[in-house]
Amino acid sequence: MTRAAAAIGERESNGGALRFPAGKGLRLDSGATLEPLEIAYKTYGRLDAAKSNAILVCHALTGDQHAASIHPVTGKPGWWDRVIGPGRPLDPERYFIICSNVVGGCMGSTGPASIDATTGRPYGLAFPVITIGDMVRAQAMLVEALGIETLLAVVGGSMGGMQVLQWAADYPEKLFSAVCIAAAAKHSAQNIAFHEVGRQAIMADPDWRGGDYETAGVRPEKGLAVARMAAHITYLSEAALQRKFGRQLQRDGLSWGFDADFQVESYLRHQGAAFVDRFDANSYLYITRALDYFDLGAQHGGVLANAFSRARHVRFCVLSFSSDWLYPTSESRDIVRALNAAGARTSFVEIETDKGHDAFFLDEPQLDAALRGFFASTAQARALT
Amino acid sequence: MTRAAAAIGERESNGGALRFPAGKGLRLDSGATLEPLEIAYKTYGRLDAAKSNAILVCHALTGDQHAASIHPVTGKPGWWDRVIGPGRPLDPERYFIICSNVVGGCMGSTGPASIDATTGRPYGLAFPVITIGDMVRAQAMLVEALGIETLLAVVGGSMGGMQVLQWAADYPEKLFSAVCIAAAAKHSAQNIAFHEVGRQAIMADPDWRGGDYETAGVRPEKGLAVARMAAHITYLSEAALQRKFGRQLQRDGLSWGFDADFQVESYLRHQGAAFVDRFDANSYLYITRALDYFDLGAQHGGVLANAFSRARHVRFCVLSFSSDWLYPTSESRDIVRALNAAGARTSFVEIETDKGHDAFFLDEPQLDAALRGFFASTAQARALT
Repeated sequence: MTRAAAAIGERESNGGALRFPAGKGLRLDSGATLEPLEIAYKTYGRLDAAKSNAILVCHALTGDQHAASIHPVTGKPGWWDRVIGPGRPLDPERYFIICSNVVGGCMGSTGPASIDATTGRPYGLAFPVITIGDMVRAQAMLVEALGIETLLAVVGGSMGGMQVLQWAADYPEKLFSAVCIAAAAKHSAQNIAFHEVGRQAIMADPDWRGGDYETAGVRPEKGLAVARMAAHITYLSEAALQRKFGRQLQRDGLSWGFDADFQVESYLRHQGAAFVDRFDANSYLYITRALDYFDLGAQHGGVLANAFSRARHVRFCVLSFSSDWLYPTSESRDIVRALNAAGARTSFVEIETDKGHDAFFLDEPQLDAALRGFFASTAQARALT
Repeated sequence: MTRAAAAIGERESNGGALRFPAGKGLRLDSGATLEPLEIAYKTYGRLDAAKSNAILVCHALTGDQHAASIHPVTGKPGWWDRVIGPGRPLDPERYFIICSNVVGGCMGSTGPASIDATTGRPYGLAFPVITIGDMVRAQAMLVEALGIETLLAVVGGSMGGMQVLQWAADYPEKLFSAVCIAAAAKHSAQNIAFHEVGRQAIMADPDWRGGDYETAGVRPEKGLAVARMAAHITYLSEAALQRKFGRQLQRDGLSWGFDADFQVESYLRHQGAAFVDRFDANSYLYITRALDYFDLGAQHGGVLANAFSRARHVRFCVLSFSSDWLYPTSESRDIVRALNAAGARTSFVEIETDKGHDAFFLDEPQLDAALRGFFASTAQARALT
């Protein structure tokens, strides 16, 4: 265990990177092994003496371990700062909160920009294809290394929610509860289609160089920005776009050209430009691929309920947003039906909002209330003081 | 009038290109004038002696004048071959059907790939920004040149439907009836957002060369293909994608790489690749811009009904598809409400289908029935034999 890991619980925000050497690497679903393996993570709060108050937070496609601390690249608050913090649903005064960068990511965990020990150069496309199962297996290695046998909860939205479901399937014995927000048990054809557009945009950029851009000292920024712009539309509802932007112009009158005339154009361009500063294009390829490959039912003989057959003791909370068209409520209902069929105790709330998929990042009082209530009752059930 | 125009009505499929010389060019909404102007068009059937059986068909974003004849580039039947033909709702035995390529297009009408008379080189980005109103004004010039005072009908889907609405606003005195399919009276923020993604994909391609690719002898094929892929997703419903492709694989098993594993990926790639063979990237920029600028209500003091104040005598038919999320039924209802408020006689049908926006190109018996019924009663009302 590294010094940083040993120091866990000593400060409000902590963390570092765990390194697993060759021979102790990560077995991948593809059959390959990823070694050495680094897992970058952050923690908030203190692990109690009984090691019973640990909550693992799983991040979404473009998220990272900086869930509730200042992001080192952007200088902005963490992506779930609204939920994690004193007096918030995940209060570090009460819980020991862990968030790690997924394998394949680009914020310190081993990913395609990491050095391939066999060549001494960045992996690029030599990085093996990874799955949601691989991400979760790496997280389980981290949790074990931190000396935690059972997580009070595993929680996440979007791709984070898929990791939650995979945890329930693969490591139910390590879970007391699980919270799956705005997710699906499999990627739909439309989900795959949008990701494929993003991948093609990146690969069409000549600066992508077959994935070897790191070595060449360039980056496929334009392609990655287009990928982000396309994806970003799917994170917002049509109603939210209309409410926020409508047809409002940037300036008085039209430009009669291809400048950003409409505020929504300017907003999208900004989303694309800001993204390339903090994200790696190859990571985007690999993580979108992991999402597309995700089909938890197919992993269990085509019956989703079978995925949860060992998770009957886990307390589940499934949340969806009424205007989410990326992972619509119908997908969450499929999850709830499977959990019910497996005999797991499950709460389900569809939150009425026009904010779309991204509602789980945004000011959504009903989400806060649902999380607060669920974690409070979970802590009570586990007799946390 | 050209020889081809003079020959109208002599063959089943006819047409050519009308040329309007300098001094007789097209006044544009931007204030510029497009001259000389060419309008490429096709006709099907014969104009009757009373010149009372002419129907103008308006094409969508990536369509052209080859509505019901073999496309010269792809060798495939025209885009509305299902609707136009003997025994079909638009029967050339009965009607004289006209379809012209929009200005800004790339199938013979003046567009950004045309030679700019002032420089002797292709316009590229020197081409003026055009509007739906400009497209319709050019069509009105063609209709006048063909000696037709009143169109029995103007009909179109998607962008074609927007042209129909613009006709009703600008030239109601030339219309007996109007059929608007799967359209909207204005582009929404989400519509603009998707178009902006496409434009950015094209402009990100280094072969776009600031729009001067024609001169350089290259074409931004990768960028245009990505633009098409993103747009194509919006033409299909989530349900249709699921029904057609779901998570079906191209081969047995996953590739564990970035090949097209899923059939939907392969399908999208094919859509992108086929599109660049028949469409010009700058035309895509200009026509999407025209769509984004479209807001018929804003052209009339912010009150859509005012756009139709002179169109009370026109018989309207408005059609929408239940699973169209690009221009959803709510947009058609807004049009219908405005037409009702203006006192125009309006039929409205929402067709139940899971095929999404593209249903107007596809085998949709309810659409055929609605069109057949409307045109039959329209012809009867105009006492066509």
